[in-house]
Amino acid sequence: MRADAVAEARAARAAYRAGRVAPTSGVAHGLVQANLISVPADWAYDVLLFAQRNPKPCPVLEVLDAGAVESRMAPGSDLRTDIPAYRIWRDGELAEETTDASAAWDEHPDLVSFLIGCSFTFEAGLADAGIPIRHRELDRNVPMYRTAQQCAPAGRLRGELVVSMRPIPAGRVADAVTISGRYPAVHGAPVHVGDPAALGIADLQAPEFGDAPEIRDGEVPVFWACGVTPQAAIMASRPPFAVTHAPGHMFLTDVPDAEYLA
Amino acid sequence: MRADAVAEARAARAAYRAGRVAPTSGVAHGLVQANLISVPADWAYDVLLFAQRNPKPCPVLEVLDAGAVESRMAPGSDLRTDIPAYRIWRDGELAEETTDASAAWDEHPDLVSFLIGCSFTFEAGLADAGIPIRHRELDRNVPMYRTAQQCAPAGRLRGELVVSMRPIPAGRVADAVTISGRYPAVHGAPVHVGDPAALGIADLQAPEFGDAPEIRDGEVPVFWACGVTPQAAIMASRPPFAVTHAPGHMFLTDVPDAEYLA
Repeated sequence: MRADAVAEARAARAAYRAGRVAPTSGVAHGLVQANLISVPADWAYDVLLFAQRNPKPCPVLEVLDAGAVESRMAPGSDLRTDIPAYRIWRDGELAEETTDASAAWDEHPDLVSFLIGCSFTFEAGLADAGIPIRHRELDRNVPMYRTAQQCAPAGRLRGELVVSMRPIPAGRVADAVTISGRYPAVHGAPVHVGDPAALGIADLQAPEFGDAPEIRDGEVPVFWACGVTPQAAIMASRPPFAVTHAPGHMFLTDVPDAEYLA
Repeated sequence: MRADAVAEARAARAAYRAGRVAPTSGVAHGLVQANLISVPADWAYDVLLFAQRNPKPCPVLEVLDAGAVESRMAPGSDLRTDIPAYRIWRDGELAEETTDASAAWDEHPDLVSFLIGCSFTFEAGLADAGIPIRHRELDRNVPMYRTAQQCAPAGRLRGELVVSMRPIPAGRVADAVTISGRYPAVHGAPVHVGDPAALGIADLQAPEFGDAPEIRDGEVPVFWACGVTPQAAIMASRPPFAVTHAPGHMFLTDVPDAEYLA
């Protein structure tokens, strides 16, 4: 990681707190980024069990105590404000997108927050190995898809696996597998390489989350388990209330990727 | 793993169910063994969170739904009877050791059971590499020690890290680290090599659990995080009721160790 990455992460969190909105892929290169899901305390066990049973899409990095908003992975942070964009869910429906989720904690002071590993972490490793990260080149959000593959249910939670996709030159697919596989805490190796139809994805150009991809000749679509999976579980399972990050707009930590090397 | 290992595991579970008592190290070589902790449902979140925050001693392999007793890792199994020896805990005190825990489920039909990875799994890898497993040679239980190192607390649970110890020839320590490190789901690489005093262990000949070791010239004590750690948390945190395996007397699964290779 670059020596000034932590300073960059802190400055970015401050900018997001002040209202800046942008996808976080590529920001603070070499530091861990995280997905957020916050639920009322009586749903916390279901979320933690869902994560335990589905570790590839839901690798839990930290669970905060009920009501707590400062992550141990980012001293001085505030989960209510330091993510560029949030989604507020009511009964499984997207009720609001906002840049400041403080009102959610006012309404539910017992929210339990889960920080879940994000594939943007291993993108640093891919980039360092000279593997192109198309959505960064195009300054777009990574494309994410709901699949036909069901996660293992847990308590009141069920839902489909969500995957992120990166087009990889065929000659670098093995490298991409090896490099991402070194980071099991941030989704690890791909869940699927190649045929989108086998995952139940009808049209790669129509991702459910993020932006459409650009796949060039000689490139293969490679799919990784995605931390947006809990949002699909919210839609399918309809808890009364939840807060998440907006896809692609992650929580930046001060923790080096290298701490999660297997 | 040997082709007949699953048959051996099934036969061993049937023998334990019928009353046989013996440590399980070396039984059904190549299959995963697991620690058990079962608690009333209202303590389940604390246990799962404690495990999430302390993954080296508490790598969760499976969480059963409240009241369930058949592990997905061993079809036809019954967690109430298929472990050679159980401990019943009341208010943090060891109330009873028994070979049949059915009465515990009668008393608390909502028990939530956690199966936690066991270092006996990677012993197969050590043995296959020609690294001596002293406690097996001597037909003893592995020595386990409470340390001065506190686990990360979670909810109402806190307690010291418990470690298992194997004396390893100095020239094979690096191999033992590498081989066990391939199995993060069963404690992974050692937490400590060498000086027992640094862990707060005053006397290697007086383990809190299991049998005293025999350390020969040229051997180094190597310490791995141990799945008995939840039992130390029970002693320190005093939940009203809990069931565990007796140290060294594990639950045998039908799952090959290789499924947990990182």
